[in-house]
Amino acid sequence: MAKQQDTFKQVIAHAKEYGYIFSSSEIYDGLSAVYDYGQNGAALKKNIKEYWWKSMVQLHDNIVGLDAAILMHPSTWKASGHVDAFNDPLIDNKDSKKRYRADVLIEDYAEKINQKAQKEIEKAKKRFGESFDEEQFVNTNPRVIKYKTQQKEILERLGKSLTDENLADVKAQIEELEIACPESGSKNWTDVKQFNLMFSTKLGASADSALDLYLRPETAQGIFVNFANVQKTGRMKIPFGIAQIGKAFRNEIVARQFIFRQREFEQMEMQFFVRPGDELTWFEHWKSLRQKWHYSLGLGEENYRFHDHEKLAHYANAATDIEFNFPFGFKELEGIHSRTDFDLKAHEEHSGKKLQFFDPEMNKSYTPYVVETSIGLDRMFLAVFSSALKEEDLGDGNTRTVLKLPAILAPIKAAILPLVKKDGLPEIAKEIQDELKWDFDVTYDEKDAVGRRYRRQDAAGTPFCITVDHDTKEDKQVTIRYRDTMEQKRVPISELKSIIQKAIDFRTWMGK
Amino acid sequence: MAKQQDTFKQVIAHAKEYGYIFSSSEIYDGLSAVYDYGQNGAALKKNIKEYWWKSMVQLHDNIVGLDAAILMHPSTWKASGHVDAFNDPLIDNKDSKKRYRADVLIEDYAEKINQKAQKEIEKAKKRFGESFDEEQFVNTNPRVIKYKTQQKEILERLGKSLTDENLADVKAQIEELEIACPESGSKNWTDVKQFNLMFSTKLGASADSALDLYLRPETAQGIFVNFANVQKTGRMKIPFGIAQIGKAFRNEIVARQFIFRQREFEQMEMQFFVRPGDELTWFEHWKSLRQKWHYSLGLGEENYRFHDHEKLAHYANAATDIEFNFPFGFKELEGIHSRTDFDLKAHEEHSGKKLQFFDPEMNKSYTPYVVETSIGLDRMFLAVFSSALKEEDLGDGNTRTVLKLPAILAPIKAAILPLVKKDGLPEIAKEIQDELKWDFDVTYDEKDAVGRRYRRQDAAGTPFCITVDHDTKEDKQVTIRYRDTMEQKRVPISELKSIIQKAIDFRTWMGK
Repeated sequence: MAKQQDTFKQVIAHAKEYGYIFSSSEIYDGLSAVYDYGQNGAALKKNIKEYWWKSMVQLHDNIVGLDAAILMHPSTWKASGHVDAFNDPLIDNKDSKKRYRADVLIEDYAEKINQKAQKEIEKAKKRFGESFDEEQFVNTNPRVIKYKTQQKEILERLGKSLTDENLADVKAQIEELEIACPESGSKNWTDVKQFNLMFSTKLGASADSALDLYLRPETAQGIFVNFANVQKTGRMKIPFGIAQIGKAFRNEIVARQFIFRQREFEQMEMQFFVRPGDELTWFEHWKSLRQKWHYSLGLGEENYRFHDHEKLAHYANAATDIEFNFPFGFKELEGIHSRTDFDLKAHEEHSGKKLQFFDPEMNKSYTPYVVETSIGLDRMFLAVFSSALKEEDLGDGNTRTVLKLPAILAPIKAAILPLVKKDGLPEIAKEIQDELKWDFDVTYDEKDAVGRRYRRQDAAGTPFCITVDHDTKEDKQVTIRYRDTMEQKRVPISELKSIIQKAIDFRTWMGK
Repeated sequence: MAKQQDTFKQVIAHAKEYGYIFSSSEIYDGLSAVYDYGQNGAALKKNIKEYWWKSMVQLHDNIVGLDAAILMHPSTWKASGHVDAFNDPLIDNKDSKKRYRADVLIEDYAEKINQKAQKEIEKAKKRFGESFDEEQFVNTNPRVIKYKTQQKEILERLGKSLTDENLADVKAQIEELEIACPESGSKNWTDVKQFNLMFSTKLGASADSALDLYLRPETAQGIFVNFANVQKTGRMKIPFGIAQIGKAFRNEIVARQFIFRQREFEQMEMQFFVRPGDELTWFEHWKSLRQKWHYSLGLGEENYRFHDHEKLAHYANAATDIEFNFPFGFKELEGIHSRTDFDLKAHEEHSGKKLQFFDPEMNKSYTPYVVETSIGLDRMFLAVFSSALKEEDLGDGNTRTVLKLPAILAPIKAAILPLVKKDGLPEIAKEIQDELKWDFDVTYDEKDAVGRRYRRQDAAGTPFCITVDHDTKEDKQVTIRYRDTMEQKRVPISELKSIIQKAIDFRTWMGK
């Protein structure tokens, strides 16, 4: 746990130091749970988007893009259920005046009990050494069994109260467990109330005629309301998909874990419209395709976990989470959901418009079923960034910090370095830069000794350093240094373009 | 005027019919002045962004990107002046309860007088035929002189009242001109009041502790508040620039002209930080570079107008508008502003943080001056789209509708068409598609006669059609048809990739 926290702190510090992520409005002491992407972060984010978009839209003849506005007609959110049911149960402490998520208070309490069980396990591990059988211990040790049972019972009761919308029982549970306000230690609580997570605003100037609007809490509805327009104007035939990348907003009470849970975030979603009855086949298809996509980036297959939901949301008949091993443990990165015809039907009802497809093969019209793949762009960023950050022991008593980003995603593909700042080397380096910049994001760096520049580029995630030395003038060759292996090779200037091109070739990456 | 309106209507209809632009939430009868980009629109928008980003960031070693959040600390907008001064003067009609922009009521009135002058000119033009000297007529005809003088006086008085924030005089002018409510005909007006154009929302759940937030009304401030972070972590030396593409929001009362003035829109901005005293040199530099960028796309140099501001905003010491010939006349497309140190100084004052640069050559620290280039992405979209849409007389009694988008911006680069839907031609076409899709956005179309498919691709803006016929199996050749010239050429399949590549080569386009 302590090690996890250290790693996470390093990730956050490195992200700032190398221009990946800054707190929003930092000069005004930041805006809680909102972040800005710096010069390298903006580029990495852009490259992730591109990798997703190409693989979803460009490679699929039956998937097209969409770019719907953040502001939508408020009836959209009535139809989708967000106005009525997109809530968090909140509770105020009367003494500290602090507000909490009631469910999180209880979950944190349950987690503390779980920690007690963990401690017992750790102690036993130390005592028994190599011969320790953790599974057996957990199943037989009376203390661990007690803690695990307690934890389970607490979470089950909470789950039931939330499902039944029995907020009185959530409060009762907080009181029975004697949970105190973390700030004041007081147990003097208000009732639990539902709080809607959508940010609201008003359109139009006059108070009378103003329309209450919401900042969209998800991008999916932008796709559903445009279903008929896209299908008709794009002459799409089922099965087909609509893909979209865009911002969404949630007024989270407890937003934490850096860019993992932000109040303003970005989603990459694809809604795939299929024949009713075919949805589970397509669900499996997309599960497998999305898994391939993730694996193609080489972040380590051991860092992924696929978790099928047993309990399903009211609109779904199958759902899987793709979880990633973040610095704070395995958490949801992407969701794949078989959403049935819930959304299109809801919009048909609320709008009075038909959202159907005439299937020429079946010779009839129907409301399509939907399989969704929805990935958090900021989460994907964090997955890529945190798994790439390594502290490497170089074996000679030195270590290096290196950001082993997939080359296809790296903000800067190559740094061109004159060995020294004289003898015409900078001029040659800049000539090389001026040639390569038409095809790649490259940079030029002449400050400090070349070894230090290598380390700087390692830490920034640049896959190639290209060094111009005194021989370059004669032999038209440069030294290319590989970030990951630190290997150095002398190559002709004329081959640089194809070397970099190969390293970031989309087809090669996707074919992995 | 009537012709303009027709053209504009055609543009809007075509944008919808071919999946470029839909009204937002159209199934709920739309959200006023908000639009969604459909499958082709999303692609065109993305390609415009990419063309701008590459030319600004990738080609310039001293310009880096940024992706700041839409939500910012509210002090940002206090410092920038938006809380106090980003207002429109509004007036309500007491009978119709309708609200108007007071300045627009007066401007519309002045425009009507101008129309009277135009009518006199048109009449004279008809009367005198070819020998008509418009300039002489305007300067000598008493009626025209009267109308033009009236118009000028009205606008001058309005300008002065607004500058002096004399809202009482704006109302007085409306009353003196006897302007009536367009809805009710009533002249029963309220006082004129200022209305802030920022959308506001609340962060946090509890009413007591909620923070009033704004949706950013411009992207520039996101760059200014991050100036120090980017400069330090990116080791940037003055002069350098920070570029950003992102959404901004303005609660316009009268939003009109399709995507030209939306409540939610997107900007492509670059703030260039320079030494105090150098700003006007850089201002000229960027004026000329931005002009080149626009001309490189080949939309027609006659469609651009460069308009230096005589009256400057309080933060600027030089400003130019790049105007484009939209379907409704020449209007601002991009602004280039020398913003002095106004913004950084304001943020220094409000945040108490230093936003300075230590200049090693001058051996001193200073607050940099800023030259900004700011272009509306939606406006650029409209410029590209509307100037590309042509109705062509084919000379044989037929016409065709063709969308002559610059190939580098076209959503789909090539359509692969089997001449007939049998004899193995679809299979070959799909093989070609499967090969080309790794590098380009391509599509496959087998429905209808090939001539009709050509027309469809013309109207959608696809630069190349590639037709597979019965000879293809033998000679491994296909017919490539060029959208703009309708020329057809037989070429080997193996050359397709390089033909398309050449047509969309970034370097070639920028070098034009």
